[in-house]
Amino acid sequence: MKIRRKTRIIKIGNIKIGANNPIAIQSMAKAKTSCIEKTVKQLKELEDAGCEIARLAIKDSSDARSIKRIKTLINLPIVADIHFNWRLAIEAIDNGADKIRLNPGNIYNKKQIKEVATAAKINCVPIRVGVNSGSLLVRRLAGSMARRPEAGKMVKSAMDYIKVLEDFRFYNIVVSLKGSNIYDTIKAYQEIIKFCDYPLHLGVTATGFSYSGAIKSAIALGVLLKEGIGDTIRVSLTDTPAQEVKAAKAILESLGLRCFGPEIISCPTCGRCEVDLIKIVKELENRLIGFPVSQLAGLTGTPAHRHTGIPKVALMGCEVNGPGEAKQADIGIAFGRKDGLLFSKGKPIKKVSINKCMDVLLKEINKI
Amino acid sequence: MKIRRKTRIIKIGNIKIGANNPIAIQSMAKAKTSCIEKTVKQLKELEDAGCEIARLAIKDSSDARSIKRIKTLINLPIVADIHFNWRLAIEAIDNGADKIRLNPGNIYNKKQIKEVATAAKINCVPIRVGVNSGSLLVRRLAGSMARRPEAGKMVKSAMDYIKVLEDFRFYNIVVSLKGSNIYDTIKAYQEIIKFCDYPLHLGVTATGFSYSGAIKSAIALGVLLKEGIGDTIRVSLTDTPAQEVKAAKAILESLGLRCFGPEIISCPTCGRCEVDLIKIVKELENRLIGFPVSQLAGLTGTPAHRHTGIPKVALMGCEVNGPGEAKQADIGIAFGRKDGLLFSKGKPIKKVSINKCMDVLLKEINKI
Repeated sequence: MKIRRKTRIIKIGNIKIGANNPIAIQSMAKAKTSCIEKTVKQLKELEDAGCEIARLAIKDSSDARSIKRIKTLINLPIVADIHFNWRLAIEAIDNGADKIRLNPGNIYNKKQIKEVATAAKINCVPIRVGVNSGSLLVRRLAGSMARRPEAGKMVKSAMDYIKVLEDFRFYNIVVSLKGSNIYDTIKAYQEIIKFCDYPLHLGVTATGFSYSGAIKSAIALGVLLKEGIGDTIRVSLTDTPAQEVKAAKAILESLGLRCFGPEIISCPTCGRCEVDLIKIVKELENRLIGFPVSQLAGLTGTPAHRHTGIPKVALMGCEVNGPGEAKQADIGIAFGRKDGLLFSKGKPIKKVSINKCMDVLLKEINKI
Repeated sequence: MKIRRKTRIIKIGNIKIGANNPIAIQSMAKAKTSCIEKTVKQLKELEDAGCEIARLAIKDSSDARSIKRIKTLINLPIVADIHFNWRLAIEAIDNGADKIRLNPGNIYNKKQIKEVATAAKINCVPIRVGVNSGSLLVRRLAGSMARRPEAGKMVKSAMDYIKVLEDFRFYNIVVSLKGSNIYDTIKAYQEIIKFCDYPLHLGVTATGFSYSGAIKSAIALGVLLKEGIGDTIRVSLTDTPAQEVKAAKAILESLGLRCFGPEIISCPTCGRCEVDLIKIVKELENRLIGFPVSQLAGLTGTPAHRHTGIPKVALMGCEVNGPGEAKQADIGIAFGRKDGLLFSKGKPIKKVSINKCMDVLLKEINKI
C-alpha cells in the first residue's frame, strides 16, 4: 500500500476527515426528510450500524427546516444534499446542517454559489463539491468538453467549481466524483489528486442491487484506498442504509484501514471438514457483537489487526491444514471429528471437546 | 485497464483458460467426495449457478475412485485437490480427473513429483501449482527464505516447484498464490508474472464469513484483474458453493470482463423516491432469470455491456435525476409518484402508469 495522500483537514460536526484521520463512513437516510419520525428512526439505525456522517435529501423548505429538530434527536453530523435550489442550502445552514453537498450540474450560477459560500463560511460549514457523471452540466459539455472522456469531464467540472469557491476565499471543501462504472470512477479520483489537496469522498453512483452493488463499490473503492486515495466513503446500495454501512465497514476492514472488532478468518470448508463450520462462524460472530474495540486507523499499509492489539480469530474446518493456514491468527480452533485443536500463531495448545470449543475460544479472546 | 497479460493456453476438460479466453469461474464442492450423491448434488447446483470448473477434495483412495462415477453424472471439468499423498494424484488421473492441484507445501519430493508429472503428461492433464501462504514448506522457510516477505516466499515456492516440473519437460501448468490477506495476495501475483507465462488462478485463502469474504475477494481480485492479471478465479467463502459463484460473477461483471445477463443499474433511493425501489429491482432481477445472453469476454477495458449488445437497464427512484444519472442505460424507468418515465440513453420516451412499468420495460428489453 502506498502512503495515504496528504490532504487538508475538514471538520463535519464533531468528525474530522482528511490527513491521518480515520476514513469516515457515510450513508444517507432514505425517508422524506420532513417525515421527522421516519428520518430519525433511520438515522438511529445508521448510528447503531456504525455510520459516522449522515446525509439527508433536502427537496423543499420543510425538509430544510426539519434539520433543526432532527439534530436535537440524534448525534450524527448531518449533511444537507442540495440540488437545483441554492436557497435550500442557505436554509439548511441556518437550521444547523454540518455540511452542504452541492451538485455542480444543477447549481452553477456564480452569484448563487457566492451566497451559499458566504453563509457556509460564517457558520464554518464545509461544502462538498459533489460531481456525478450523470448530472454534469449539459451546456458545459459542448465544444472541447464533449471530447473529453467521462472521468476528465468530472474532474474539469469539479475543478471549475472549486476555482469559483476559492475565488470567494472559500477553502472548506470536500470533493466527490462518482461515475456509474468502476473505470470512470477510479480514473477521475486518480486524476483530481494532481490538482487539489481537498479531502475526497469516495463512491460509485447507481451501483445496482445490493450484492452486486457492494462488489462493484468494493473494487472501485478498494483500488483507490489501496493507493492511499480517499478520506470518507459511501457505499450506495439499493438496500437499507444499515446495509450500506456494513459494506463500508467490510471494505475498510479488508484493507486493514479500520478495525471494528476481532477479525474472524475461516476456511471455505471442503470434503475434509467434519463440522457445520458456517453455523459455528455465525455463532462466533453473534457472540462477539459488542466486544469492546479500538477504532484506530491503520495507516501504514499493514492490516490494522497487526497493530491495534485486536485479536485475529480463526475457525478452520480441519486439523490437518487448519493451524498452518491460519498461522497469522492470535487464537483459533481447527475442528476434527470429535475434538477441536486450540492453537495460537500456528502452534497447537490443546485439544478441546467440540461442545466446549466456543466457550474456550471466547475465554481466550477475552484474555488477549 | 491494462491489456490482459499474455499467457499460455491450458485446457481443463473442455474449458480453455489463459490468453484471450474468458476468465473462468471455479468453485469447490464441500461434501466428502466419496459421498457421491451429495457431491453430485452440489456439482449440479454449481453448474446451474454458472460454475465452469469444479474442484473436489481427494483425501483417500475412495475419493479418487469416485471421480470416475461422478464424471458420468455431470458435465463440469473436475479438478482433484491433492495434499500430502502423491499416489492419490496418480489415482485421480487414472480415474479421469481433468486437472490436478498439488500443494508445494506438502508434496515436494522430486521423485514423487516426477511420477505425478509423468502420469499427467500421458493423460494431458494440467497441474496447478497451488501455493497457500499458510502451508508453505516449513523446512524451506529457514535461512534466507525466513527473511523474505510473505508474498516473496509464495513466489519462490511456486517458481522452485515450476522449475522441478519444467526439468521433467512438463509445461501444462497453472499457478495460484493465495495469501490470507489482500496485500500479500496482490503482491505475490504481481511478482510472479515477471517470472513465468503460465495462466494464473486467482484467490484469497481463508477469507472469513460470506459477506466480508466476498468483499475481501472483490478487492484483491479486482485490483489484479483490472491490471490484466488472472485467467480463472475462485472466491473462497464459508458459505455454499453457489454463493461463491454468485460473488465471482459479480466481480467479473463489475469489471466488464464477463457478461451474464442484462446489467441492472439502480439508484440507492433517497427522500425523493416515492416507490419501493428495492422491491421493484428484485422483481426485475427475478423476471430476467434465464434471459439468453452471450458470454463474451470484454478484454479491452471497456465494460462488456458496451460491446456485447446485452442491454443495460436502469431503475431510478426519481424523475428529476433519473434519466440523467442513468444516461448510459439502453433502457430504463425513472419512477414518479403516479407514473414512470421510460427513457433510453438519457432521453425520455413516454410516461407509463406505475403498474404497467415492469411489463413495458421487459418488452423493451426483449426488443433490444
